[in-house]
Amino acid sequence: MKIEEIREWVVPIRSDMRNAYIQFSAMTVSVVALVTDVMRRGRPVIGYGFNSNGRYAPHGLLHDRFLRRLQEASETSVLNDEQDNFDPQRVWNILMTGEKPGGHGERSVAVGVLDMAVWDAVAKIEDKPLYQMLADRYRCGEAEDKVFVYAAGGYYAPGKSLTALQEEMRRYLDSGYSVVKMKIGGASLEEDLQRIEAVLEIVGDGQALAVDANGRFDLDTALAYATALEPLGLFWYEEAGDPLDFELQKVLCRRYPHAMATGENLFSVQDATNLIRYAGLRPERDFLQFDCSLSYGLVEYLRILSMLEAHGWSRRRLIPHGGHQLSLNIAAGLGLGGNESYPGVFEPFGGWADDHPVVGGYVTLPDAPGIGFETNTGLKRLMANLMA
Amino acid sequence: MKIEEIREWVVPIRSDMRNAYIQFSAMTVSVVALVTDVMRRGRPVIGYGFNSNGRYAPHGLLHDRFLRRLQEASETSVLNDEQDNFDPQRVWNILMTGEKPGGHGERSVAVGVLDMAVWDAVAKIEDKPLYQMLADRYRCGEAEDKVFVYAAGGYYAPGKSLTALQEEMRRYLDSGYSVVKMKIGGASLEEDLQRIEAVLEIVGDGQALAVDANGRFDLDTALAYATALEPLGLFWYEEAGDPLDFELQKVLCRRYPHAMATGENLFSVQDATNLIRYAGLRPERDFLQFDCSLSYGLVEYLRILSMLEAHGWSRRRLIPHGGHQLSLNIAAGLGLGGNESYPGVFEPFGGWADDHPVVGGYVTLPDAPGIGFETNTGLKRLMANLMA
Repeated sequence: MKIEEIREWVVPIRSDMRNAYIQFSAMTVSVVALVTDVMRRGRPVIGYGFNSNGRYAPHGLLHDRFLRRLQEASETSVLNDEQDNFDPQRVWNILMTGEKPGGHGERSVAVGVLDMAVWDAVAKIEDKPLYQMLADRYRCGEAEDKVFVYAAGGYYAPGKSLTALQEEMRRYLDSGYSVVKMKIGGASLEEDLQRIEAVLEIVGDGQALAVDANGRFDLDTALAYATALEPLGLFWYEEAGDPLDFELQKVLCRRYPHAMATGENLFSVQDATNLIRYAGLRPERDFLQFDCSLSYGLVEYLRILSMLEAHGWSRRRLIPHGGHQLSLNIAAGLGLGGNESYPGVFEPFGGWADDHPVVGGYVTLPDAPGIGFETNTGLKRLMANLMA
Repeated sequence: MKIEEIREWVVPIRSDMRNAYIQFSAMTVSVVALVTDVMRRGRPVIGYGFNSNGRYAPHGLLHDRFLRRLQEASETSVLNDEQDNFDPQRVWNILMTGEKPGGHGERSVAVGVLDMAVWDAVAKIEDKPLYQMLADRYRCGEAEDKVFVYAAGGYYAPGKSLTALQEEMRRYLDSGYSVVKMKIGGASLEEDLQRIEAVLEIVGDGQALAVDANGRFDLDTALAYATALEPLGLFWYEEAGDPLDFELQKVLCRRYPHAMATGENLFSVQDATNLIRYAGLRPERDFLQFDCSLSYGLVEYLRILSMLEAHGWSRRRLIPHGGHQLSLNIAAGLGLGGNESYPGVFEPFGGWADDHPVVGGYVTLPDAPGIGFETNTGLKRLMANLMA
């Protein structure tokens, strides 16, 4: 049993849209295919992985360091004790050989992409959906029937009118979502409030709308928004300030009575621990958005789950960033609170299984081996084209 | 006035040695040359930059993102208001366009390497040593006559005996160093204590020896070492635990009465701020080792200096990691407490000016324009060979 080949491609996910911090006109994703010599249904098992949006394709890092380490590892060193499957933790240890502690960014994406492909392959070799395999390994077999997903959109785009924003949000509701998210912080507070009011006209209730500042605000601005947002009773107020400014977050958590959300730009268990220790987040109210594809993968995410448990946090407070099916599988298999979704954006990386529509804000998962990429026609076609 | 060309090479700095965390057998450095159309002494000004050891050459990242942004920038956008020199802050802003907050690692090295080359070019264009230019810009012209440097060595290596360790340390003293550093944490406490005692026989006094665990210890081990080290009154006890475990550092600072040092694996002003806020470091006693070449360059380092000033820290508490001449210039120009030095290791990146020996633990800087790389024969030859 061995890895025959690892292939990697850079795929653009260009768009005119922007959040409060960056344009997406040059955004890229790495797709990796981990080709094994294990046969299932007459074909070799291939595990696929990719990074989610916001950071860039870790192409250079993969080729400078990480692919080489995996290619140079001995065949048995990547297998489990029974030698009947790959072992994600052992692969992870090989990938991280020679890496110093601290400095968790970029390489965390390279490892995340490879880790996703490993878990996809491992579940395919077990011939189980990944969520079921995770439930079997870590939760006595109990997977969730369905996962809460919310529609993340409401980006800024050149010439985008309030009407266009409203139409976008109506499409999300018509597609079965019960909660939508929009960007703030890329315009003035006044203009953002007009945008928010326009969206509330469509979604009806503050609990159906989350807002995301993408880390743009200083403390004064964050507090001014908090004051303006408070009467609206929103679903959450996300990443008001710099993701590492735990003091700012702490002040906000004292002043703003409703839910806040953060964590998508913290890429390690060490950084996640500091957030929990210092940012004053409220375990009964706030949400954590760590995204395994940017953060050393599911192997590291399992460490984050242990850390959270030790700090008295329920897994239900976790709703990962990124809108990919690995997090969807983790949510179903390990009982997270939900997952992000980008309907119509970052396609085909952001979609679910074709015949599993969102209903009442929840989505079900297909009974297909692995992460389930092949159940999404767009993704399946992309991966087939890359491999061809 | 424009950047004509940017070239980059990956140079191995292979060695058999190791610290408590990594081997150096695959360590690499990126060298960049920023070729301008400005003529000085009949030749075009070229700014050079490289990263220090411990992290890897940011080759892939430079080519995936950062070189392209600089190459695509308009000619005037990288110049100062007077249009008579390049502007490091403006270059930095261009490099960081499209980068989200958080995740400070790897890209911080790519930006650090380019930033070093920019400052070298800027000082060469001003026809001043960089330390003098920094003193003129930020300190009313007052540069230091000399800079404290300590000899960082004492690595683990296959078959290295206590006698070999003692001989190494004696060489450092004979070369003019007054303080030496050795690695700990790569062996048992008992064995490390034997190594430390052996070195103390040579250097005579605890204040002439620093020890560095490279982030290897958990809290219990860190405390056990602290208890064993306390009677020795060492110069400092460096990076006992994970660089992001501020709680561990805080407990240690409460228990261990002598100086501690950390910071080389924190790569942004945000991470540095969290260290100061949470780690319980003592401004009258401890040392900070942020290394600009790994941390978004001198532009970011100036922000770190401002942050430290706001928190009541003297610049004398800063003794950067990395042993390169950019930090040496910053130390002389802005009044830091000193700089690391790796005599005979990581050559030629770790050397000072040829005709400026270390005397009594201090080194003087040459009166050469720029960072002064050309005053070190080894570096000058390397750069000439690369450019040839």
